[in-house]
Amino acid sequence: MTVTTPEGFRAAGVAAGLKTGGAPDVALVVNDGPDAGVAGVFTANRIKAAPVLWTEQVVRGGIVRAVVLNSGGANACTGPAGFQDTHATAEHTAAALTSASAYQIGAGEVAVCSTGLIGERLPMDRLLPGVAAAVESLGDNSGAAAAEAIMTTDTRPKTTVVAGAGWTVGGMAKGAGMLAPAMATMLCVLTTDAVAGPETLDAALRSATRVTFDRVDSDGCMSTNDTVLLLASGASGVAPSEAELASAVTAACHDLARQLLADAEGATKEIAIEVVGAADEDDAVEVGRSVARNNLVKTALFGNDPNWGRILAAVGTTAAAFEPDAVDVAVNGIWVCRSGAAAEDRSKVDLSGRDVTIRIDLHAGAAEATVWTNDLSHAYVHENSAYST
Amino acid sequence: MTVTTPEGFRAAGVAAGLKTGGAPDVALVVNDGPDAGVAGVFTANRIKAAPVLWTEQVVRGGIVRAVVLNSGGANACTGPAGFQDTHATAEHTAAALTSASAYQIGAGEVAVCSTGLIGERLPMDRLLPGVAAAVESLGDNSGAAAAEAIMTTDTRPKTTVVAGAGWTVGGMAKGAGMLAPAMATMLCVLTTDAVAGPETLDAALRSATRVTFDRVDSDGCMSTNDTVLLLASGASGVAPSEAELASAVTAACHDLARQLLADAEGATKEIAIEVVGAADEDDAVEVGRSVARNNLVKTALFGNDPNWGRILAAVGTTAAAFEPDAVDVAVNGIWVCRSGAAAEDRSKVDLSGRDVTIRIDLHAGAAEATVWTNDLSHAYVHENSAYST
Repeated sequence: MTVTTPEGFRAAGVAAGLKTGGAPDVALVVNDGPDAGVAGVFTANRIKAAPVLWTEQVVRGGIVRAVVLNSGGANACTGPAGFQDTHATAEHTAAALTSASAYQIGAGEVAVCSTGLIGERLPMDRLLPGVAAAVESLGDNSGAAAAEAIMTTDTRPKTTVVAGAGWTVGGMAKGAGMLAPAMATMLCVLTTDAVAGPETLDAALRSATRVTFDRVDSDGCMSTNDTVLLLASGASGVAPSEAELASAVTAACHDLARQLLADAEGATKEIAIEVVGAADEDDAVEVGRSVARNNLVKTALFGNDPNWGRILAAVGTTAAAFEPDAVDVAVNGIWVCRSGAAAEDRSKVDLSGRDVTIRIDLHAGAAEATVWTNDLSHAYVHENSAYST
Repeated sequence: MTVTTPEGFRAAGVAAGLKTGGAPDVALVVNDGPDAGVAGVFTANRIKAAPVLWTEQVVRGGIVRAVVLNSGGANACTGPAGFQDTHATAEHTAAALTSASAYQIGAGEVAVCSTGLIGERLPMDRLLPGVAAAVESLGDNSGAAAAEAIMTTDTRPKTTVVAGAGWTVGGMAKGAGMLAPAMATMLCVLTTDAVAGPETLDAALRSATRVTFDRVDSDGCMSTNDTVLLLASGASGVAPSEAELASAVTAACHDLARQLLADAEGATKEIAIEVVGAADEDDAVEVGRSVARNNLVKTALFGNDPNWGRILAAVGTTAAAFEPDAVDVAVNGIWVCRSGAAAEDRSKVDLSGRDVTIRIDLHAGAAEATVWTNDLSHAYVHENSAYST
């Protein structure tokens, strides 16, 4: 049910001592082919971690035979020395795989992902032996172990599988904080045994992330390390249509995004902000994101308060097309605001559950979009005021 | 030491029963002239409360003889009926002042400000008698009472006075949450007995708010009611230069902004984000605001953690000119980040006090700006998850 479910992939997850406590912290995903296709999307943050800068180059090369991932350190804001560490990790992985395989692998075919604290060098004396151990323990059914090894503040691993007609998409992801991706989210590796060329893979991945990870805005904070990779082995021998592949990849990303939202740091609510009646999709996303990032809306929902006035005030900070006296807002199905003023009795709103749906009708057109977020809780403040200390 | 310190002004603060508990909730500031000059800046939120829509019109008329303010209700998102309530409040104030004065006052010369919960109509049956009582109790030394009557979640009134050469600027303000003004902050009335024409007043107020209230971003949430008014009586008979007036008004706004920051909901830190080495001032403000709004930076500071990686990640989400490997960051004087990577030992940073200074050098030019914010604490979550319930 993960990255090793599609044919042609092996994986591993081992403990290398990067995390305190002995939890798994090095993961490896290997594509045994016959194809080695890849597509990738990366953080839009201009402060990019060393592994992002490296992996962007690797993906441009068009061939990825392995992805090595570590938790326990983001290798971000580590300067030229940090980039050399990433390069050395790729070299080491390529050499270990070559000596264990029937074929040659170059460092330029190895993607690297890191996650954890920003600003500290990785302990290479532990990471490199960990990579060697991961190569040793590669297995056809070790996807779950890999998904566990990339966790940081996640409380559970996130994996998915979507079946096509004779082919499959599998995936894993991590991410619980700094979760407001603008091109991707945190770390995610998707695999497929479909036969697909680079343009098809790239189109499928971009169309999928645009409406899934890109619309998760848990805490408004964009990471330096966000990376989503899609690897294709071609091992099924089946070439789906572009639309079929895109649909399956979108379903996989949607499932993983939902799991990220469900496990977000300290959250007690999973909130869908459905913006309808927008002049265009960009307007709908802008409005949804503005509400998703509003701390007063998020604290109100933590307090089970359907405070539509705060929602309207957040909508009012956008440049989207709407008339202030035409906006309707429903919270969990109760239209507490019509035409910009109070409507149904707010006491009718049931906020006792974990799922919250805010529906905003701008009455300015026919476009719509949904943005997902979480509430702002005491536990979020606690976890993030104590994370590095 | 407040709005009644300059010559020509009277004020009042009374309890009308809008707030539970009998605290003062209606304030009145009257300009007895000889001049009745005014300048105003208002929220940039497109969802504007009825009193903002009304007072924008009044200020455009060029004459303001009185400002009536209430706490206990924002009169925002209340539709056409809410606007009629504001109009009725101005009419009632004008009539009561006319019958108590030697001169005629029209409703179009009365500014109205409201603050409190969004989305509920004001109890006019209590507000209008409160206005009458305020007119009855007008006094030359009642500025402090007025400042108290406009408080909501504020724990203390905010007042200021700045002396010129033979003239004075006085002021009062309120605001503790929804504090991220883009043209003004919450409610603020400034008074001066200087002789000044409308252009001079407007220029002084805009130059003052641009570098004070506009750069306070306590919680990233822009209000529907933000209003800053500057009233000029001319009673001193002294006409300062434009620069002298602007300087005094800026000093008054700076003092009030500092008091707002010090009393922000649940805050344990007052944080100055000094951005230097920017290509232009807009870049500096954008970077400062991005850091000010970053929940992970704010929770880290609540936890006394000089987490410069989170600061850098926030800088990276802006479009400002900088090279990622050229940015330096100091926290309370310790340069924990140089050239985008770790530098001085973060354990040297003393965060035990309430004041925090983050200095970010973009190394991209000579412009600079400071943005002020607060930390994100348990008390902020508590106060804002329980405010309306």
